[in-house]
Formats: sequence, C-alpha cells, structure tokens
Amino acid sequence: MLIIGELINTSRKAIKAAVETKDADYIKQVAKDQLEAGANYIDVNCGTMVNNEAEVMEWLVNTVQEAVEAPLSIDSPDPKVIEAGLRLVKYGQPMINSISDEKERFDSILPLAVKYNAKVVALCMDDTGMPETGEDRVRVAQSLYQKLTEAGVPDENIYFDPLVKPISAVEKAGVEVLESIKLIKQLFPKVHFTCGLSNVSFGLPNRKVLNRLFVVQTMTVGMDGYILNPTDKEMMGVIYASLALLGQDSYCMNYLTAHRKGLYEV
Amino acid sequence: MLIIGELINTSRKAIKAAVETKDADYIKQVAKDQLEAGANYIDVNCGTMVNNEAEVMEWLVNTVQEAVEAPLSIDSPDPKVIEAGLRLVKYGQPMINSISDEKERFDSILPLAVKYNAKVVALCMDDTGMPETGEDRVRVAQSLYQKLTEAGVPDENIYFDPLVKPISAVEKAGVEVLESIKLIKQLFPKVHFTCGLSNVSFGLPNRKVLNRLFVVQTMTVGMDGYILNPTDKEMMGVIYASLALLGQDSYCMNYLTAHRKGLYEV
Repeated sequence: MLIIGELINTSRKAIKAAVETKDADYIKQVAKDQLEAGANYIDVNCGTMVNNEAEVMEWLVNTVQEAVEAPLSIDSPDPKVIEAGLRLVKYGQPMINSISDEKERFDSILPLAVKYNAKVVALCMDDTGMPETGEDRVRVAQSLYQKLTEAGVPDENIYFDPLVKPISAVEKAGVEVLESIKLIKQLFPKVHFTCGLSNVSFGLPNRKVLNRLFVVQTMTVGMDGYILNPTDKEMMGVIYASLALLGQDSYCMNYLTAHRKGLYEV
Repeated sequence: MLIIGELINTSRKAIKAAVETKDADYIKQVAKDQLEAGANYIDVNCGTMVNNEAEVMEWLVNTVQEAVEAPLSIDSPDPKVIEAGLRLVKYGQPMINSISDEKERFDSILPLAVKYNAKVVALCMDDTGMPETGEDRVRVAQSLYQKLTEAGVPDENIYFDPLVKPISAVEKAGVEVLESIKLIKQLFPKVHFTCGLSNVSFGLPNRKVLNRLFVVQTMTVGMDGYILNPTDKEMMGVIYASLALLGQDSYCMNYLTAHRKGLYEV
C-alpha cells in the first residue's frame, strides 16, 4: 500500500499563503505531519502558481526535504516544472504525477520517467478525452503499458490511475473503475494503481463515508495506492482495517497499532 | 440485496425472557422494528430451547406473523423444528437456515426445501468439517449445487454461506471468503450468497468497524445477502452507500433516503 500525502498543494489556501510569504516552517510541519500519519510519499503540487510554478516547485522541494527524508511525488501537468522538481529530489525514488496517453504530454514526460527512474502515475486518458467505460480505461492502459515498458520503464514503476468520476452524475462510475482495475491486473499483474478519492462522492451528502467505502471497494479488487490526506484518522483507520481483512497484515499488527494510536475515533 | 434480521434469537437474553414469559408484544415489536429498519426477512431461531424447540418455534412464527406480513427465515439445525416453522409460514417464500453438505443434515432438510419451495442457506461445509481454503468452499458448493438442483431446487433459491472465520486466528480468513465468492459466482452466476458477520472480527478491537468493512468487501465481490441487526443504523448506512457506489441504486435514491433517515450518525 502506497499512501501519497496530498496536503502540499497550492490550491489549498494555507499552502498558497505559506508559499506567498515564504513560510518554510509551515510547509515543513505539513510534510512532517503527513509522514508521521503514515504517508509513504509527499506530493508537491503548485499548479495554481501559473507565473512562477517551476520556481515555487524548487522552493517547495527543497523546503520539504529540509524537514523530512521522504520520497516526493512531483505533481504538475508541465514537464518543465516536473523536471525542476525531479532534479532536486534527494531521498529515495521520485514519483511523477502524472503522465497520460495524450500525445504531447506522453512524449514530454516519458524521457523524465526514464532519466530519473521515477515511479509514474499513468492516467487512463488519451487525446479522445476522459474514459467512459471500464473497457475504455483498459484500452488506454494497454497503450500506455506498451509504450512505457518499451521505453524501459519497469512494470513496478507504473501506477495506473483509472480516473474516478462522480456516481451522482454517472451511475456506473464506481463499478467501471472496479472493472478496469480487475481487467488491468489480469493483463499486467505487476503494475500498481492509484487514484484520488473526492470525485466519486461529488454532489452527494456524507461524502467522507462514500470516499472511505470507495477505498475499501477499490482495495478489494487490487488498488494499492491512494493520494489522500493521511492526517484524516478515520480514513487511515479504514485502510489498516481493510488490509487486515484482506490478509495483508501479519498477525493484524498494523491494525492493532492503528487501534492504539486512536485511528477509530469516529 | 437481502437483509435477514437476526434479532429474534433465544440466544439473546431479552428474547429468551420474552419466550419464557410468553411476552408476545415484545416479540412483535422486535419483528416490526427490524422490518421498518429495512429487513427483507425475519430470522426465527430458538435453538437454545432444547427441551421444547419445536413448540417455541411455532409460537414465535405465529407471534411474528401477527405483527408483520414478512417472509420468515426458519433457523434451526433440527429438521423437525424447521418443518414445524415452515408449516405455519403465511407470507411470501420461506427461507430455511440452513442446509449443509453433512450427509445427515442434507438428507433430512432437502425434502423440506423442495416441499415448501423455500430459499435455502447452504453452508459450505461437509462431514470433513469446517472449510479451510477458498477452494475447499468451492468444492463443497459444487457438491451442494449439484444435489440441490438435481432435486429441483432452482439456482435462485440457493444462498451459499461461505462460513467466515476470525482473521485474528486465520490471517487469510477474509480473503479466502472473498476468493470463494468470486469462484462460486463464476461457476453458478444465478445463485445468491449470505453470511453472518461477527466471526470475522472475533478477538480484535473495533469489531463494528471490521464487520462493516467486511460487508463492503464481500459486497464488492458479489455477496448479496446478510444476516445482521438491521436496527444498526451505521451498518445499514454502509450497505446503502456501498450499493450506490456499486451502481446498484438508480439516481442514488435509496442512498439519499437513507441519508434523510439519518443512517450516517457515526
């Protein structure tokens, strides 16, 4: 299970303010908090800083690495910004968030994945737009898999993101994602998966409940990575409980530790 | 989704007391409460009344049916008690809880399933004892399926119970159940499933969390029946949320109704 901490993102007000005032201490604290809460990767996203995104990325990457020795997920649609971040990564194997099968994006980001031996989040979309069915996702995943592995990216570095839509708008949106995971896993047993969580519940009440249960459902069919807020105790508790139920937690040790840490306060 | 309300069971103190004092009003209220909370079937179990189980079964079945026009699940290991209950059932299609592939039990209960055109909970165990692996469960399910259908029980009447063990004792207990559901569903797409929930979490803290998440996991692979306490609001909320996420709830209408009923108080 790979937990990518999502909090360092300038679309969040507090992070934007910290970037604008160069409040390094705040950024460092958010990085530490996420690592202590169980994150394996720290995502860094400053996509809202359109005028100086690369410069902000560099500052954020350096600042985070002054606080924690954690691997980073460099998150931008812009290959120049991604490389600005990757160049500075010091700890572990970096992650690129994200590549897709859109031609321009693919061609510009692939060389970075190879050069930096990075994990890559591979969005299941191409120039025809967002996928509709599970089969659409599988078709794009097959194309991405072939091109990535031919270029030398090993299976283990690929994290397919099936792209989750709101069930309030598309009744089968959740099920199509579950189907696509099952099918992609059958084709390529060594690849990984990741996704964001908030889309699925958009427009409905009790969104946190839906998001948590969608984690349980996707884990059941093999999803093994999430970009989320690791300081959300209930969500992390749900993940530890699911892993124990899925037989992926020897003697339920991590579950019991999570219990002692109070991750079930709901 | 078939919800079998489990509360009318003489192993519960309040029910035992009501049976002993012939407190019909209490029994009726528990039946009504379960139906209003969303149960589709009302289970009736007086297995602890060893001296007069058949007589108590008759009283309970009559009493429940004076309160609600709901189909009943007649729950006993004793075929005489099961028939005592079945004979009195007035509303809808009765359910027998349960048959298994233990020879004596199978041979004595099969004729009742046929005679009363009952749904049958079919435990995946035989005279060799409790199943270990998913494959063990599938083997027993195949044997049961063949004998039940040859005797004229239609696929739709069969509810396989894979038998859930505690993950605290058997690390892969949950996963073996998930595997067996997937495999049995592939072999026999029209059969149904059901299970009880408390075993999986035995010996661990936060049992309610584990039970709820195990419902989500098993629903994800196709389980479509549970024997549980339907007045447990959070559990019912989890079921409605899961159905919405699984695309089995048009326009999320049942989910939104559950929200208005306050099923997400946690």
